[in-house]
Amino acid sequence: MASKARVGVLGASGYTGAELVRLLLRHPRVEITLLTAERSAGKAMRDVFPQFSPFDLPKLVTVDGLDWVGALLDVAFCALPHGTTQTVIKGLLAAAPSTRVVDLSADFRLHDTAAYAKWYGHEHLAPELQSEAVYGLIETHRREIRHAKLVANPGCYTTCAQLPLVPLIKANAIELDEIVIDAKSGMTGAGRAAKEAMLFSEVSEGFNAYGVGHHRHMAELDQEFSLAAGREVVVSFTPHLVPMNRGILSTIYVRGGRGRTAQNLHEILIEAYAKEPFVHVLPFGETPHTRHVRGSNMTFIGVAKDRREGRAILVSALDNLVKGASGQAIQNMNLIMGWPETTGLEQVALFP
Amino acid sequence: MASKARVGVLGASGYTGAELVRLLLRHPRVEITLLTAERSAGKAMRDVFPQFSPFDLPKLVTVDGLDWVGALLDVAFCALPHGTTQTVIKGLLAAAPSTRVVDLSADFRLHDTAAYAKWYGHEHLAPELQSEAVYGLIETHRREIRHAKLVANPGCYTTCAQLPLVPLIKANAIELDEIVIDAKSGMTGAGRAAKEAMLFSEVSEGFNAYGVGHHRHMAELDQEFSLAAGREVVVSFTPHLVPMNRGILSTIYVRGGRGRTAQNLHEILIEAYAKEPFVHVLPFGETPHTRHVRGSNMTFIGVAKDRREGRAILVSALDNLVKGASGQAIQNMNLIMGWPETTGLEQVALFP
Amino acid sequence: MASKARVGVLGASGYTGAELVRLLLRHPRVEITLLTAERSAGKAMRDVFPQFSPFDLPKLVTVDGLDWVGALLDVAFCALPHGTTQTVIKGLLAAAPSTRVVDLSADFRLHDTAAYAKWYGHEHLAPELQSEAVYGLIETHRREIRHAKLVANPGCYTTCAQLPLVPLIKANAIELDEIVIDAKSGMTGAGRAAKEAMLFSEVSEGFNAYGVGHHRHMAELDQEFSLAAGREVVVSFTPHLVPMNRGILSTIYVRGGRGRTAQNLHEILIEAYAKEPFVHVLPFGETPHTRHVRGSNMTFIGVAKDRREGRAILVSALDNLVKGASGQAIQNMNLIMGWPETTGLEQVALFP
Amino acid sequence: MASKARVGVLGASGYTGAELVRLLLRHPRVEITLLTAERSAGKAMRDVFPQFSPFDLPKLVTVDGLDWVGALLDVAFCALPHGTTQTVIKGLLAAAPSTRVVDLSADFRLHDTAAYAKWYGHEHLAPELQSEAVYGLIETHRREIRHAKLVANPGCYTTCAQLPLVPLIKANAIELDEIVIDAKSGMTGAGRAAKEAMLFSEVSEGFNAYGVGHHRHMAELDQEFSLAAGREVVVSFTPHLVPMNRGILSTIYVRGGRGRTAQNLHEILIEAYAKEPFVHVLPFGETPHTRHVRGSNMTFIGVAKDRREGRAILVSALDNLVKGASGQAIQNMNLIMGWPETTGLEQVALFP
Repeated sequence: MASKARVGVLGASGYTGAELVRLLLRHPRVEITLLTAERSAGKAMRDVFPQFSPFDLPKLVTVDGLDWVGALLDVAFCALPHGTTQTVIKGLLAAAPSTRVVDLSADFRLHDTAAYAKWYGHEHLAPELQSEAVYGLIETHRREIRHAKLVANPGCYTTCAQLPLVPLIKANAIELDEIVIDAKSGMTGAGRAAKEAMLFSEVSEGFNAYGVGHHRHMAELDQEFSLAAGREVVVSFTPHLVPMNRGILSTIYVRGGRGRTAQNLHEILIEAYAKEPFVHVLPFGETPHTRHVRGSNMTFIGVAKDRREGRAILVSALDNLVKGASGQAIQNMNLIMGWPETTGLEQVALFP
Repeated sequence: MASKARVGVLGASGYTGAELVRLLLRHPRVEITLLTAERSAGKAMRDVFPQFSPFDLPKLVTVDGLDWVGALLDVAFCALPHGTTQTVIKGLLAAAPSTRVVDLSADFRLHDTAAYAKWYGHEHLAPELQSEAVYGLIETHRREIRHAKLVANPGCYTTCAQLPLVPLIKANAIELDEIVIDAKSGMTGAGRAAKEAMLFSEVSEGFNAYGVGHHRHMAELDQEFSLAAGREVVVSFTPHLVPMNRGILSTIYVRGGRGRTAQNLHEILIEAYAKEPFVHVLPFGETPHTRHVRGSNMTFIGVAKDRREGRAILVSALDNLVKGASGQAIQNMNLIMGWPETTGLEQVALFP
Repeated sequence: MASKARVGVLGASGYTGAELVRLLLRHPRVEITLLTAERSAGKAMRDVFPQFSPFDLPKLVTVDGLDWVGALLDVAFCALPHGTTQTVIKGLLAAAPSTRVVDLSADFRLHDTAAYAKWYGHEHLAPELQSEAVYGLIETHRREIRHAKLVANPGCYTTCAQLPLVPLIKANAIELDEIVIDAKSGMTGAGRAAKEAMLFSEVSEGFNAYGVGHHRHMAELDQEFSLAAGREVVVSFTPHLVPMNRGILSTIYVRGGRGRTAQNLHEILIEAYAKEPFVHVLPFGETPHTRHVRGSNMTFIGVAKDRREGRAILVSALDNLVKGASGQAIQNMNLIMGWPETTGLEQVALFP
Repeated sequence: MASKARVGVLGASGYTGAELVRLLLRHPRVEITLLTAERSAGKAMRDVFPQFSPFDLPKLVTVDGLDWVGALLDVAFCALPHGTTQTVIKGLLAAAPSTRVVDLSADFRLHDTAAYAKWYGHEHLAPELQSEAVYGLIETHRREIRHAKLVANPGCYTTCAQLPLVPLIKANAIELDEIVIDAKSGMTGAGRAAKEAMLFSEVSEGFNAYGVGHHRHMAELDQEFSLAAGREVVVSFTPHLVPMNRGILSTIYVRGGRGRTAQNLHEILIEAYAKEPFVHVLPFGETPHTRHVRGSNMTFIGVAKDRREGRAILVSALDNLVKGASGQAIQNMNLIMGWPETTGLEQVALFP
């Protein structure tokens, strides 16, 4: 085999950064040559994530003023906070245009700069890149991603909602104005920043909704669902926090269009995902648990009949740090590098 | 003050039984004179629930062949399994007709014996009592309960769904055919029977839906919503299990009827519950956490605007063992005994 | 009954503050007339702890520049951070000498100002008060506390370790140089400050020791054990964090002195606590769970035989926020106010 | 590469069985050709562990009457309950003597049949095999294991205690009569049998010791520590249950022998494990978290100075299902099959 590809993780001290390192350490085609972190610059990776203590990894450095040319990165994973991301990637691609970038932030997911400005409250700082970025939901956009220079890795909530819904919307199989998505996420989705509301004692032994009626992920759903439908689609979406570390489960209420039954919807999904390595549709009537995909890149989807005539309930589950973030990012890397998509992502779910 | 009322807890070795004992030990108007348990008969209560070790309580006895006359119970709380309940209460009321019964099982909640037979798979064993039983959701049926001999204490899921919805249905304020209830419960709702699926390692660090499309609680919702509406109402309802001990949270998606906005719905609920001691409607736009009612008899309700025009999202939260079971049962006892409804139920939520 | 005593909670936005409010709201002899919080000054208590939403409570104010005379407090509970405490209490007692103070911080627990300086790294700011403060472990120092103006409420770890050990040390029943205390605490013991290490995702599904070999609580143990023994006693003590909100469990390894068996040690404890309302010694061989004291002011103690001849294992459990902090503080208030010690503290443990 | 080795998992419906399947599915040298389960015989593996739904695995069959010759197993992992194991392995090795067996039960760990009878209450059913079985703690017994036909895979608690202690005992570096092991385990250690005490609601939000003074694992510790010391060693050992799925942490209190300091003990361990792939000694003074080894085959060991002169505190952590059971079993298979020991065990810890 030729020499390994050189990859960097920008923002390695957060949870998606650590998850990238966990997976990349066992990816046979890459070596990790760069790790950045701002407040922890100068430290070893083991100081911020002791599980890496037995491994030999580059020291954390600050992203400011990095010599992108000298870094010689084949692929850069960008797991930086919103905002910072735009500036960093702009600089990186200007200096080292042959580096491929997979961005895990929300910064390049919206094609429409007006939508971006509306939801994020300021003008986009790299609008020329935004138009060039490819939205990285592989099961939907595989062809465009293959040649992308900059991939906008999808959000965890939105991946979990799109995988069951997009094939149904494309098939014109459900009523577009009656979609309700009730989503539940583990706590790693909230990131590693120290906030009172995320303390163990605030979270454990409790459950709550948040951002009711106005969560930012909606913009991404609007874009992709409308694209799939060929018309504007607006869904109800409510996120909740579950006292667990990993996992997202979406319970989705739909009405079949033009006489479609729940079974029909199930058949469409079975067919759509027959060859996908990381989407598994359960037998009709079975619904997934988040624990059955924990630590793996897999998405499980179930379809059941609602007792209200003509309606169905879809349930999808994935690990927000893997298929919802770092695993999907590596899948994107594999795709743009021309490697088998499953490389380095074969880990089986950890349960119990 | 006169002597204390004599109360018994039938089925004291389960979670609702223990919760009754917890609350009754501090209720100023009662003394616990009888505790039953089948497999643990002969043991002390401390052997099945060591937290009662410091307290003086009657020994557990079997309910079979109990001398109901000699027991001289003013009130019997029945926390027995489904099925058994019908036979036991029939015997108790036949022998000791002056004893008031608050039943925490599902056995007497459905007025319609045909509905009962359909959902539970067999004929009701005490149909004459079923017609006499009063459905014990106090905020809705206070007047009938006051004179009841047998109160059918509502289910935990259904209490959590009815409290936000019944006033809106009665006010004809929402579209009856578009109600979606996405409910999430802590694990004590599953009871204390040893089942593999309820083991810690099966539950922790995970989340799942269950009984999708066909949960038994639906019969109770159908009955009460249809009663409130004056026509048949069928809702979508999906229960989920949260890795926590206590708490139910319902996220409810509704469409305002005849131009009603989310704010209008909020006003209706504020007014409906202005004087209720155990239902608290949060300011518009705020939604509750289960942790904020843990261990208390309180239900918190929030109302927020959906971004889809004309729609609202209701969120309600209660402790399934208190307002969802034993606390509500004691509230029912207080009501039928003519005591202030809040007696013995003043405990403030335990958070964190 | 005469009018209620006026009590204030200084530092109401932390966990021990909230726990004080939870208990004081149901204490029949007091009314809460003052609540302070620094960063949250100006807010309602419900904004920092939504469980209090249904209750009428004073608005949070800053402690700086408070008019202590006008406040007319009978009792002030001080739940402020280390350091601040000394200055605030000094000012309070200077301005309003008739106010009794129960301090929940570590600031006044050490009689020896040199020990204080060594462990905390700076001189004590109110040494004259330190000498006057009474150490508030009621079961050991009841007599002195009764007349105290300033009570230093013990730490949670140290309460849990002292209750089983002090009677044995006083009885000269164990080898003083072979005591090992392995302590495990729930996360509320770490307080509400937003720190990365206390985030849910850092804590859940894991277990660890911390401060191995050099935890500050040791100074308090040294003082009290040496006092009980009449000579210097130094123990091994290792604290651990358990992924739960409440509870401390100490597993204590001792060797019986002069032929004492584990049974002998058990008898000494049974006798020592025969009349204590909040210490319960289990039958020989049984050991407690933290869950069996959750939310209550109770401490459970068990004694078992070690298989190594002549040795015993003691296990003690309490709720760190109740008997380990706010409950014990209220018990101290009851004592100094001449009320029955159990007033307002009768709540039974919440399990499950 | 030659054809893959054929391996079977006897007892595949328990947690160690599932963990074996998780790891073996990604082991490059084996294929799973046999899975047994008693109550679930006839089902697919996905019916008892839905995470395996996407994989092609043999159907579960009962172990009774299996044709061991026809099964053509190169390696059999035995994850059956205590007792059954002896009979099954006896039959297997009689019929198919070329099959190598790695047994995960406790049945063949004790060389002394008298010790076995004492701790387990009955005579051993295959004493001739017991004498032949090799105790499978690789770091201690690598040489003997290489040629074993039957490996008795060590227990999880005992692996976690032996790895830090055996090198110190062998080096005669600690006082043998003052060892205290305080061990804490996640709940998967209790297995998958449905027991009330293991229900989520009994376990969550609580902590407790169990088997205080008389846990069966002690026999295994006695044997190995005495072997290492060349004299009888009896330690204090107390197991506890932590509300988490995976992980064991042992806090071990020792006194250095003949003037050894904590630093000396650390040096001995550093040297002992310098070349071991799955034991990692942290820098002096650092102690491990269970979360940092979750899902991996790694053991982390820390050494810190106790404040009591001449004493040290050792802390070790491993994943009870991996290094404490199935991972170590695969490491044993690798060893007896002559493959690199780390094959199939390279997975990095899953944190958060």
